[in-house]
Amino acid sequence: MSEIPTKDIDQTDRAYEVGGGLIDAILQAIEDNDRPTFDRMLEPLHAADIADILEQIGSKERNAFVTFWGADFDGEVLAEMDEALSSEIFESLPDSVVGGAFRDMETDDVVDLVEELELHQQARVLDALDVSDRIAVENALLYPEESAGRLMQRELVMAPEHWTVGEAIDFLRTDTDLPERFYDVVMVNPRLEPIGKVPLSSLMSNGRDVRLVDIMDEDFLTIPVLQDQADVAYAFNQYNMVSAPVVDAENRLVGVITIDDAMEVLEEEADEDIKRLAGVGEGSLTDTIFTTTRQRFPWLAVNLLTSILASMVIAQFADTIEAIVALAVLMPIVASMGGNAGTQSLTVAVRALATKDLTSANAWRVIRRETTVGLLNGCLFAVIIGVVGVVWFGSALLGVVLGAAMIVNLLVAGSAGILVPLWLEKFGVDPALASGAFVTTVTDVVGFFAFLGLAAAILL
Amino acid sequence: MSEIPTKDIDQTDRAYEVGGGLIDAILQAIEDNDRPTFDRMLEPLHAADIADILEQIGSKERNAFVTFWGADFDGEVLAEMDEALSSEIFESLPDSVVGGAFRDMETDDVVDLVEELELHQQARVLDALDVSDRIAVENALLYPEESAGRLMQRELVMAPEHWTVGEAIDFLRTDTDLPERFYDVVMVNPRLEPIGKVPLSSLMSNGRDVRLVDIMDEDFLTIPVLQDQADVAYAFNQYNMVSAPVVDAENRLVGVITIDDAMEVLEEEADEDIKRLAGVGEGSLTDTIFTTTRQRFPWLAVNLLTSILASMVIAQFADTIEAIVALAVLMPIVASMGGNAGTQSLTVAVRALATKDLTSANAWRVIRRETTVGLLNGCLFAVIIGVVGVVWFGSALLGVVLGAAMIVNLLVAGSAGILVPLWLEKFGVDPALASGAFVTTVTDVVGFFAFLGLAAAILL
Repeated sequence: MSEIPTKDIDQTDRAYEVGGGLIDAILQAIEDNDRPTFDRMLEPLHAADIADILEQIGSKERNAFVTFWGADFDGEVLAEMDEALSSEIFESLPDSVVGGAFRDMETDDVVDLVEELELHQQARVLDALDVSDRIAVENALLYPEESAGRLMQRELVMAPEHWTVGEAIDFLRTDTDLPERFYDVVMVNPRLEPIGKVPLSSLMSNGRDVRLVDIMDEDFLTIPVLQDQADVAYAFNQYNMVSAPVVDAENRLVGVITIDDAMEVLEEEADEDIKRLAGVGEGSLTDTIFTTTRQRFPWLAVNLLTSILASMVIAQFADTIEAIVALAVLMPIVASMGGNAGTQSLTVAVRALATKDLTSANAWRVIRRETTVGLLNGCLFAVIIGVVGVVWFGSALLGVVLGAAMIVNLLVAGSAGILVPLWLEKFGVDPALASGAFVTTVTDVVGFFAFLGLAAAILL
Repeated sequence: MSEIPTKDIDQTDRAYEVGGGLIDAILQAIEDNDRPTFDRMLEPLHAADIADILEQIGSKERNAFVTFWGADFDGEVLAEMDEALSSEIFESLPDSVVGGAFRDMETDDVVDLVEELELHQQARVLDALDVSDRIAVENALLYPEESAGRLMQRELVMAPEHWTVGEAIDFLRTDTDLPERFYDVVMVNPRLEPIGKVPLSSLMSNGRDVRLVDIMDEDFLTIPVLQDQADVAYAFNQYNMVSAPVVDAENRLVGVITIDDAMEVLEEEADEDIKRLAGVGEGSLTDTIFTTTRQRFPWLAVNLLTSILASMVIAQFADTIEAIVALAVLMPIVASMGGNAGTQSLTVAVRALATKDLTSANAWRVIRRETTVGLLNGCLFAVIIGVVGVVWFGSALLGVVLGAAMIVNLLVAGSAGILVPLWLEKFGVDPALASGAFVTTVTDVVGFFAFLGLAAAILL
């Protein structure tokens, strides 16, 4: 399989999208039992593209695809795939295919795949590996999920303090077990502690006699092996790093993390934040209908509780509504505006927490800011909605009540939108996961209470 | 300035967050006019960390910081900063500082900064650069914003077809104008078309006599110079690339994009999607209160219109509500559940479109899936809310109306959540930007109409 697709991918309008035409042609080749055409279509595709194709077709076509591919099945395709699907496909692979599919993979890719599989499936993959690869994978699995230890590769190039550029180059020319990709030579002392990094580009541009310690970069960050992968990705992005040595609790070099792994984590974490904010958990398009229904149920259940709470507030004012039915017509406006303003504030807060732009140093300033913005937009919309109320229902007092309730609710929305994420973060709860439910509860309850309460006090 | 902070940053719980303690100490040093302490605190910090500090402190402290730093001001700090703020700080820099601050920066960093500045400010930066750097920056600015041409660096290492490993190494040892970072030597033919890439690690591990064409990687992707930066980032992530040659319309090599730039774009694009989904545009914590209020106003105004539309639906049933006030109490529940279910569907759809997992090949399957999930959750919540209606208000028929309206609205929410983003994408509108308003309008209108309409038909 070649590394990069060069054909059948449109580089202009829908760049890099694996087109429906190509997929149809592949499925046709399978139906026609036309192996040469099938191979010719797959040949230029990267494993990630084949994974995308398998994700996009139906389960019947998927089975036919995998069966037709047979012994040539590429294990990397599974590593590039959604969790639910890789497990399903793996289950369908005969032992003869499993034996060959994973032997050529880099161990960190195998780890990526194995951690997504179920326990009995993991054993099948491990059994198919060479002893040394098997040990490397098993060691990686000893580290906690989402830690630097899972992310790093053990294969790396290190050099002792006394080496010269020439000695390093000679070593690299003779060593047959080099990592597939490396960007730095890590300098270590006799205790195996990293003391510097020599980028390959420096190695190339200096003479053979130059000592490595004289050209090494001493200002480098080491990643603790237990560090959370989100923090690792943050560090790569913040400090424009390309690779970083990973150290154990005794500061001994145990591996290297490269930027391509960090980039994948960065995308995963942003994706997780977006989906958590919308209450869809880990959902992906390849989950079954049943799984998806179950994944979305909890968030909807929480929302049901909060909206029943809001209904209870409304119920307190049943007499008021019975007297002035216009209140029932207008009350959703105030609550809905509050919900949207609150979501704006909390989204900015959740992102700022994730990118470490919101800290104890500026929390109070940001709280003041969000509250003031809520107040200002509250005043603007109070005028607009007040006019609407007066024009629509011909009552100046109704307009005043609407406007006043709008100011109160947008002010509260602004404060809740920043305070709730800050509190959740403080108590160790992911603010992306739970902020929405709390904030909309507050804006619903306050919205209905302020509007109906003011109406009861002023209009009755 | 050293590359990576090694002190004052907690590596455990709040890893890489620039702490409030450090910021306080720096501000104290400024107040005490204690330059040695100030310099000692800044010395281990990366430009990105100093940018974070300037973002987190108030504007008065910021002015004091920049003034105190004076001629040592590092231009890279501005490149790492939020747009609004970098422009504000730049405006306050005297010409003497501008002269020195940007001369040592890589040209692609200068481009990053300059494109955020206003026109008269851009001229001040360009005037401060050497002629060759100035031309490079001006050339980059000729490409459209957010294109590969803006992202790429012009500094690169290329080699003709006939070179050997030894000739390449000798060239690298003598060339004094190498890029700060490079990972591949790009092989070109006499027409300057890229024909392959030799990773530095291959260059290192092969003997001097080996011909480059024999070890070059021929399966590589070239990036068209006008390609959208989001597609560039997608390609790096999808194909695990580290660097890619950029070519013009005649397929001639014009630059190189490296993964660290792609990573930044990937994060920017995800951030943009999250913020657009929540209707906060390009908002960041450093925007002024006035700017923020103005940024959030349009989305709230759209929401006001949609909620007035919903109110108009309610107004049609004023008589029904007057007869049965319980309807006013319960009606927000159905609408709110629909809004949430719709947001779940549309978020999955928007992400799947962004990651090119939702295409013409699987659109119908996904539409069926989302609609079915909506129907299933609709049925589940119909039972729950039906029971609530019966228990709370003692009316079996009210329970039936609630349940039926819930099924209708969640079914509609599921379909609208997928159809609206697909339509917007088809008509060239960013689905992250506009889906929310359309979908909640649909769920509000359908929710109130189904509930009150059924109630009017069945209960009256």
